[in-house]
Amino acid sequence: MHDLRPQDLDIASLGPCTIPSPLIRLQDVGFVEDSTRIRLEHRTGPQFDKYEPFSLEEAGPRRTIYFDPRKTCAAVVTCGGLSPGLNNVIRSVYSELSYNYEVPRVLGVRDGYMGLNPQAGQPLVEMTPAYVDHIHDLGGTVLGSSRGPQEPATIVDTMQREGIDVLFCVGGDGTQRGALGIAQEARRRGLKKAVVGIPKTIDNDIQFVQTSFGYYTALEKAQEVLRGAHVEARCAPNGIGLVKLMGRHSGYIAAGAALASQDANFVLIPEVPFKLDGEDGFLAALERRILHKNHALVVVAEGAGQDLMAGECLGTDASGNAKLQDVGLFLREKILAYFRSRSIEVNLKYLDPSYFIRSVPANPSDRILSDQMARMAVHAAMSGKTDLLIGYMHNELVHVPIATAVAQKKQLDTASDLWTAVMRSTGQPMW
Amino acid sequence: MHDLRPQDLDIASLGPCTIPSPLIRLQDVGFVEDSTRIRLEHRTGPQFDKYEPFSLEEAGPRRTIYFDPRKTCAAVVTCGGLSPGLNNVIRSVYSELSYNYEVPRVLGVRDGYMGLNPQAGQPLVEMTPAYVDHIHDLGGTVLGSSRGPQEPATIVDTMQREGIDVLFCVGGDGTQRGALGIAQEARRRGLKKAVVGIPKTIDNDIQFVQTSFGYYTALEKAQEVLRGAHVEARCAPNGIGLVKLMGRHSGYIAAGAALASQDANFVLIPEVPFKLDGEDGFLAALERRILHKNHALVVVAEGAGQDLMAGECLGTDASGNAKLQDVGLFLREKILAYFRSRSIEVNLKYLDPSYFIRSVPANPSDRILSDQMARMAVHAAMSGKTDLLIGYMHNELVHVPIATAVAQKKQLDTASDLWTAVMRSTGQPMW
Amino acid sequence: MHDLRPQDLDIASLGPCTIPSPLIRLQDVGFVEDSTRIRLEHRTGPQFDKYEPFSLEEAGPRRTIYFDPRKTCAAVVTCGGLSPGLNNVIRSVYSELSYNYEVPRVLGVRDGYMGLNPQAGQPLVEMTPAYVDHIHDLGGTVLGSSRGPQEPATIVDTMQREGIDVLFCVGGDGTQRGALGIAQEARRRGLKKAVVGIPKTIDNDIQFVQTSFGYYTALEKAQEVLRGAHVEARCAPNGIGLVKLMGRHSGYIAAGAALASQDANFVLIPEVPFKLDGEDGFLAALERRILHKNHALVVVAEGAGQDLMAGECLGTDASGNAKLQDVGLFLREKILAYFRSRSIEVNLKYLDPSYFIRSVPANPSDRILSDQMARMAVHAAMSGKTDLLIGYMHNELVHVPIATAVAQKKQLDTASDLWTAVMRSTGQPMW
Amino acid sequence: MHDLRPQDLDIASLGPCTIPSPLIRLQDVGFVEDSTRIRLEHRTGPQFDKYEPFSLEEAGPRRTIYFDPRKTCAAVVTCGGLSPGLNNVIRSVYSELSYNYEVPRVLGVRDGYMGLNPQAGQPLVEMTPAYVDHIHDLGGTVLGSSRGPQEPATIVDTMQREGIDVLFCVGGDGTQRGALGIAQEARRRGLKKAVVGIPKTIDNDIQFVQTSFGYYTALEKAQEVLRGAHVEARCAPNGIGLVKLMGRHSGYIAAGAALASQDANFVLIPEVPFKLDGEDGFLAALERRILHKNHALVVVAEGAGQDLMAGECLGTDASGNAKLQDVGLFLREKILAYFRSRSIEVNLKYLDPSYFIRSVPANPSDRILSDQMARMAVHAAMSGKTDLLIGYMHNELVHVPIATAVAQKKQLDTASDLWTAVMRSTGQPMW
Repeated sequence: MHDLRPQDLDIASLGPCTIPSPLIRLQDVGFVEDSTRIRLEHRTGPQFDKYEPFSLEEAGPRRTIYFDPRKTCAAVVTCGGLSPGLNNVIRSVYSELSYNYEVPRVLGVRDGYMGLNPQAGQPLVEMTPAYVDHIHDLGGTVLGSSRGPQEPATIVDTMQREGIDVLFCVGGDGTQRGALGIAQEARRRGLKKAVVGIPKTIDNDIQFVQTSFGYYTALEKAQEVLRGAHVEARCAPNGIGLVKLMGRHSGYIAAGAALASQDANFVLIPEVPFKLDGEDGFLAALERRILHKNHALVVVAEGAGQDLMAGECLGTDASGNAKLQDVGLFLREKILAYFRSRSIEVNLKYLDPSYFIRSVPANPSDRILSDQMARMAVHAAMSGKTDLLIGYMHNELVHVPIATAVAQKKQLDTASDLWTAVMRSTGQPMW
Repeated sequence: MHDLRPQDLDIASLGPCTIPSPLIRLQDVGFVEDSTRIRLEHRTGPQFDKYEPFSLEEAGPRRTIYFDPRKTCAAVVTCGGLSPGLNNVIRSVYSELSYNYEVPRVLGVRDGYMGLNPQAGQPLVEMTPAYVDHIHDLGGTVLGSSRGPQEPATIVDTMQREGIDVLFCVGGDGTQRGALGIAQEARRRGLKKAVVGIPKTIDNDIQFVQTSFGYYTALEKAQEVLRGAHVEARCAPNGIGLVKLMGRHSGYIAAGAALASQDANFVLIPEVPFKLDGEDGFLAALERRILHKNHALVVVAEGAGQDLMAGECLGTDASGNAKLQDVGLFLREKILAYFRSRSIEVNLKYLDPSYFIRSVPANPSDRILSDQMARMAVHAAMSGKTDLLIGYMHNELVHVPIATAVAQKKQLDTASDLWTAVMRSTGQPMW
Repeated sequence: MHDLRPQDLDIASLGPCTIPSPLIRLQDVGFVEDSTRIRLEHRTGPQFDKYEPFSLEEAGPRRTIYFDPRKTCAAVVTCGGLSPGLNNVIRSVYSELSYNYEVPRVLGVRDGYMGLNPQAGQPLVEMTPAYVDHIHDLGGTVLGSSRGPQEPATIVDTMQREGIDVLFCVGGDGTQRGALGIAQEARRRGLKKAVVGIPKTIDNDIQFVQTSFGYYTALEKAQEVLRGAHVEARCAPNGIGLVKLMGRHSGYIAAGAALASQDANFVLIPEVPFKLDGEDGFLAALERRILHKNHALVVVAEGAGQDLMAGECLGTDASGNAKLQDVGLFLREKILAYFRSRSIEVNLKYLDPSYFIRSVPANPSDRILSDQMARMAVHAAMSGKTDLLIGYMHNELVHVPIATAVAQKKQLDTASDLWTAVMRSTGQPMW
Repeated sequence: MHDLRPQDLDIASLGPCTIPSPLIRLQDVGFVEDSTRIRLEHRTGPQFDKYEPFSLEEAGPRRTIYFDPRKTCAAVVTCGGLSPGLNNVIRSVYSELSYNYEVPRVLGVRDGYMGLNPQAGQPLVEMTPAYVDHIHDLGGTVLGSSRGPQEPATIVDTMQREGIDVLFCVGGDGTQRGALGIAQEARRRGLKKAVVGIPKTIDNDIQFVQTSFGYYTALEKAQEVLRGAHVEARCAPNGIGLVKLMGRHSGYIAAGAALASQDANFVLIPEVPFKLDGEDGFLAALERRILHKNHALVVVAEGAGQDLMAGECLGTDASGNAKLQDVGLFLREKILAYFRSRSIEVNLKYLDPSYFIRSVPANPSDRILSDQMARMAVHAAMSGKTDLLIGYMHNELVHVPIATAVAQKKQLDTASDLWTAVMRSTGQPMW
């Protein structure tokens, strides 16, 4: 973040807000001024005060807004892989628009951006109270999702044809880049369209988003799986539990689940390269653990150790994500071969919960967060702000320019409280 | 079962029971007579009354017993793969022996039969109230487990050396065959040892055991995974959820989880051969489902479709179980190839919860069942009965000669209420 | 049951079945003959063989049926308190009728019998696939429920007006008595209406129903509460956890949850009177436990100890159930007063989960059972059988005449495996 | 907080830190300087910049420490009511001291402060790896707890006699005041003792602690109960679910659970007085809801509406907390009487989960937080810091002088994102 310039954190807006917010009729609204900002660096001290005090606009309802609610049409789209809380976001976007702003027409887009391309997707859904009634208790997204972009021009055509003024794009960094493209295309055509992103990142890899909805729910299921692997390992002579968890570019799920479980002995993440061989390599350390304690639990993020796996490029998926080698199966083979070569009999149990941890309903903290992100996105959009996503820094919801947020992937800081706690709870060596 | 002879259901006994049961001091004991038996066929009607009324001895405490509790030493061993309820069995065997029969010495065998071989295993554990205090809330087995037999002679040597009169063997059919070998070796030496089996079969494949502990708990976790796969399938265009569940020889887990979930469209089990190709094959049926409904959930038991997978024999594992080809990965490839060949884009999500469903703590019904099986095993052993396992027929706990129980694997009857309900709830075609 | 006469177990029928079942087109149907019956006494032995072999008709699809599916209209009503599995019953009744029998019109009755009285209730619902799509994952009943009867004449009027041929009544014994009244009224008018009951009894107090849907799910939540109370008790000096559980006339929930938890020290149920005072009373026993172990867990069924509570009659609720004094609050006061009088400081924590344990979604075993009961009810009704409910004996689903089933409440047999195991796991004294 | 003086946030210390931290040998330690502080106000803008920039010392390991680990003896005590995560705190305090600092002796205090009074309590426990092995998966506190203070002089006597240098006090504000008294007594005697608090507040009512461990776990259980009450309410004609949740002085649990559930229609908390009667009172609002929607869910924090309940003072409990009138039962009566007076039949179901929501094991986010708070407390104490508790502000763990933290109770800010979201999701009126 040291290369940030102050203007990187400025929020684009369609124009002056002249319409009194209909929320004024409600209690306990907590209106926020545009001038209120959250410091990126909330530390103070000799090594911090030298940095320029970057800050982000605080999210929240504004007293005056840009769009006339009675004449506004909004739409929400969910893209990419599932994350617990998607239905909660959809429902709260709908509720805030419909009940509080009294926006008459809220549309649901089916199957991701594909649903904004009439050639490819299913028709838009007119959302109603009945449509969203029970969905907050269900996993997945009632609107469906899909991977991959659509032409911005096609999408803006659809928005024009349907009269959509405001588009909420729920998804990861690919989705947000798509949202930016849509906003730019609309601006190129001189249209007053607000495009607001809601970050969906179960892997927790979007910048300026300390965590998004779904992450802590995923930890609950991941920790259950770790407990299962730990039980298997403890109940067999020289038992080794090996669990692969989600995390293509960041080790947050692996680290969080391991710290919650307190039973992991090794946590391998993309941010911390490791080597397999040699006295100070992973395999020798695992052997020491097995000889000393007779059981071990190894947690590996799917993006870890990619450098160790030889072989050709696997290409990219429809969202443009690089396909990864399967580090779980790779490690399983390496561990088994190693102990065979050492003539030590081990009982390795491999667990790969994969999609299981992401298709469950959201837990309370994620339900609260998805509700709040959704409502903040509505406030931002109704105020004519665009090209932004709802960020979350130091426990405050903020506005982040999409371009800035997606400039790079967030990774786990190895000096953070989370990783240092993982290191201390596992007793894992340096590689 | 039509080949059964009446004597197949007779229970071996070490000798006459002359010692008054110490349970007489307790309330609400529910003593059972040896002469009370449970009919195998509890139906009546023209097609049933022609069968000889085979029956099994009812389990339960006897008024007079064989072993003098004050001088008895007992041991319990858990073998093979995990199943929810193992710790509950250990704890209830201990509690019934220690508190109710006031047996002074109850030993725990570490790591399966290996722990009865001093060359191979860890020392025996003297069980105490503290040792078993919390274990009923934990998955796995506090004693550890392992696969594979040990020499009966070695085990009987250990029993003699340690003064073990009564051995409780908790495990599947391999374990029970081992128990039978131990009992026979003891008898050959003229020793009065009672060997009683407690059936552990998460797959539900032991005869005369309608279900054992762990099965319904496994269904809870399996159903959660099915729900996840269903959510994934519904949220993607042409989404297919494919879930592999445990069940090497029997489809009970797959069928039970599918019926509980009500979301499965195809359930493939070992008992029902299917074919992949052709108009009436699985792949064409799946295509029809996808074209009609845009999503599908397929559940496959690990032992299903073995005949479809070409290739050499994979040998056996340490318990002597034939290693199976991975039908889940096989189906994934076949499905993807098929739809590619049909130029239909599908989103297949494969979930293999494997050990996850068996390493969790037991649910209440399994906790109750494991408590009761354990106590019944104690009653049987204290009464000098041997070479038997605790069976469960028509909701009654019974004594089953091990030799009879392990003569063949139980499989799911395709005319049973369970399978017919699966067929009707899925609408799955005949292959 | 010794006063049963054979004809008590005969099933009433509207007339001969001449229409081939449309299920013939399906696989694995498992047709059952009317002549196949399940013995009530499946034991054999000197003390059993003297009893006449009563038996109940086995439930299941018949090859020929009474109603022409294409011309049949069915309705389902849920009455009384909630039980996990109600939505599963509704969904499976609908599915079996609609998909398998291809009955064109299935109605849902709103808010219990009230919905069959046009003066009192809401209109009937035309059930559709969308209506039942997600309901099996939700607690409660999507149709709503209410307590109390309606005039049979009014209900039969509604059935005539709406053309309802077949009525499924899901509820407890009051509901089933209501169902019987409806059937009798229809017969009096010479109408060919089948009225089939599906027993809903979370308390497990309907005869000839070993357990119904909801019971094991209730145990899961009840056991969680017991665990909480046990934790509270163990973590405080002289901690006493006191938990009141459902069970107006029978102690099944209290006994089952206590046995599953293994942590209860006292289980007080309606079937076993106890006294508070004296050396052999409950309070002195509790004091001994506290002095010996410093913590105790007491489980009381809401119907226990009614004789101990002085005071006037509290009348009956809308279903005609006698209102009970609150034994939980009564015991709390008695325990606190007793220990005060003994100058022993205790920490009593009282938990009353009440409706919480019954409003959750069904667990897998209850989902399977509610599916099967629902389908069996459909088979019975389509075969023109009436005045019956679906019973469950020795793990088989059977037909039971309603009049026989509701003749008395089922109670927990203190010689049963369940209660003797509770006695042995708690070490509770005789009062 | 506007009356704070800068020195209120200064941390007391026993003296200069001259001993190199043994953590230096470990990887990824993340040492923190004393000079690094976290701003209390992390907003910037016209209305914020006028405030003096108060800041709190960041928690974390220091490079040089005060106590020589090899000669240090530490003890941990848990006091007051249960909160999910207590065992996790105990285990991580032990682990950090024992494995990372290599402190040779870590003692556990039994049953709260009582265990530091040899006249009153049980002996201290020498903690070992086996003692803490499984406890992180269990609810409650393995050390036991109790309410109420002990004489600081008695406690310091015990610390001297046992050689305890460092005391960790886990508890609420009463406990922390006790900790402060102990520290002051030790200082008065000229002893170098570090007393460090770890805030336990399931109600979330300690200042400078954004949330503590247990809060989000409590929300999970509370939300389950709300779902049950909502199901009951929807399934009965004019159903009203009324749920009382913990929260003596603050409405965080009620607000958080209601927002997570999205089903609540009224949330009554101590911070927001309400009136029952009149057109704009609660009862009339509830009637409007019932007439409009036929069901309602009301959530009330135990400390809400105390002003409405006439009657004498109920005194205080052993911790000095004022005993509260039971607002749940009060509201139940008021609601029933009101609708009776309006001749509207309602079905009210009252649920009071009470201790159930606090005796469960911690969820992953609480497990992570309790681990981190525990380790931070160890770092603080080993660095000779005292009279402080581990606070949590803007997602950073900080040092807070106990005197400042306990000066007043934290309450829910009605302008906060949490409360405004509750208001918008319920549509609840102003009273």
